[in-house]
Amino acid sequence: MALVHYPVVNKNGEVIASAVTNLDLHDISRSAKTYGVRSFYVVTPLTDQKELVEKIVLHWLKGTGARYNPKRREALELISIKDSLDEVIEHIREQTGDSPKTVVTSAGHNPRNIGFRRLGEMLEDGTLYLLILGTGWGLSEKFMSEADYMLNPVLGNTDYNHLSVRSAAAIILDRLFGKKE
Amino acid sequence: MALVHYPVVNKNGEVIASAVTNLDLHDISRSAKTYGVRSFYVVTPLTDQKELVEKIVLHWLKGTGARYNPKRREALELISIKDSLDEVIEHIREQTGDSPKTVVTSAGHNPRNIGFRRLGEMLEDGTLYLLILGTGWGLSEKFMSEADYMLNPVLGNTDYNHLSVRSAAAIILDRLFGKKE
Repeated sequence: MALVHYPVVNKNGEVIASAVTNLDLHDISRSAKTYGVRSFYVVTPLTDQKELVEKIVLHWLKGTGARYNPKRREALELISIKDSLDEVIEHIREQTGDSPKTVVTSAGHNPRNIGFRRLGEMLEDGTLYLLILGTGWGLSEKFMSEADYMLNPVLGNTDYNHLSVRSAAAIILDRLFGKKE
Repeated sequence: MALVHYPVVNKNGEVIASAVTNLDLHDISRSAKTYGVRSFYVVTPLTDQKELVEKIVLHWLKGTGARYNPKRREALELISIKDSLDEVIEHIREQTGDSPKTVVTSAGHNPRNIGFRRLGEMLEDGTLYLLILGTGWGLSEKFMSEADYMLNPVLGNTDYNHLSVRSAAAIILDRLFGKKE
């Protein structure tokens, strides 16, 4: 999985680099660990933001946090910090010898969207997939158009469609990998 | 739904009142709104914590937050602050003329647990249910034993069983009410 802070859009649709949110790191890494995700990439080109992520992760990996809550360490160990999606893909290629297919998620509808069941079936043949989540008001249009696949938005049973990225990540993983009882 | 900050246990199993986490309010109210939950009760007996919740909610309901992000307002409107679960049940009784059946959630296994499918079926007959989530290291044993039902833990496909309460709330609502494609 990758959580992207650039290029995303703000409320007015402008492309920005969003700030890293501490609880995104904790919640999404714990969900990733729960559902057997291999790596959780935090993508930001901003030096101060990369340093912040490193500081948080190190606190839980080697600092007092590691002693206080070893289960948190197991989850945050999944995190790698990268400048860009290209760097993420390069890293996966180095680690596995293979390039992942990219799957973007968004709250919007698009004719290219595929359903959760379809993606679940695709995951079964051993192909590497990289699930990409956007922060802020979502991934930029251009970024999304370059992905191999776009996943359906997570819908509830109302027309309110404004989940946090942390909640959306948890639900997407559960729909793909969860034991339903 | 209710998010309970007392009586919950800490890491050492002692009964405590936990501190309110800002993002619990945001994430869980947005998930609740997405899945058509009627009310989201934040339960804490601590005066300073109640004041904090009130301050956060008012910022998004009437302050600059309401203008900045009206969608956030729609979600946070679901929040009511109560001292105890008894007060929550009394409030529901006043509002609806009916007492809810209580359903507690936890990360643990218990012979009394019911599955998600079973609860989904039970929800269809129009009975009022109150889904209760614990903060900290979970609801106290005594508190759980007094509930009408206990729901299965949310399991992934690994033996890592440490989701955040925000993620667990999102997944539980999606399992009960989500449209799966």
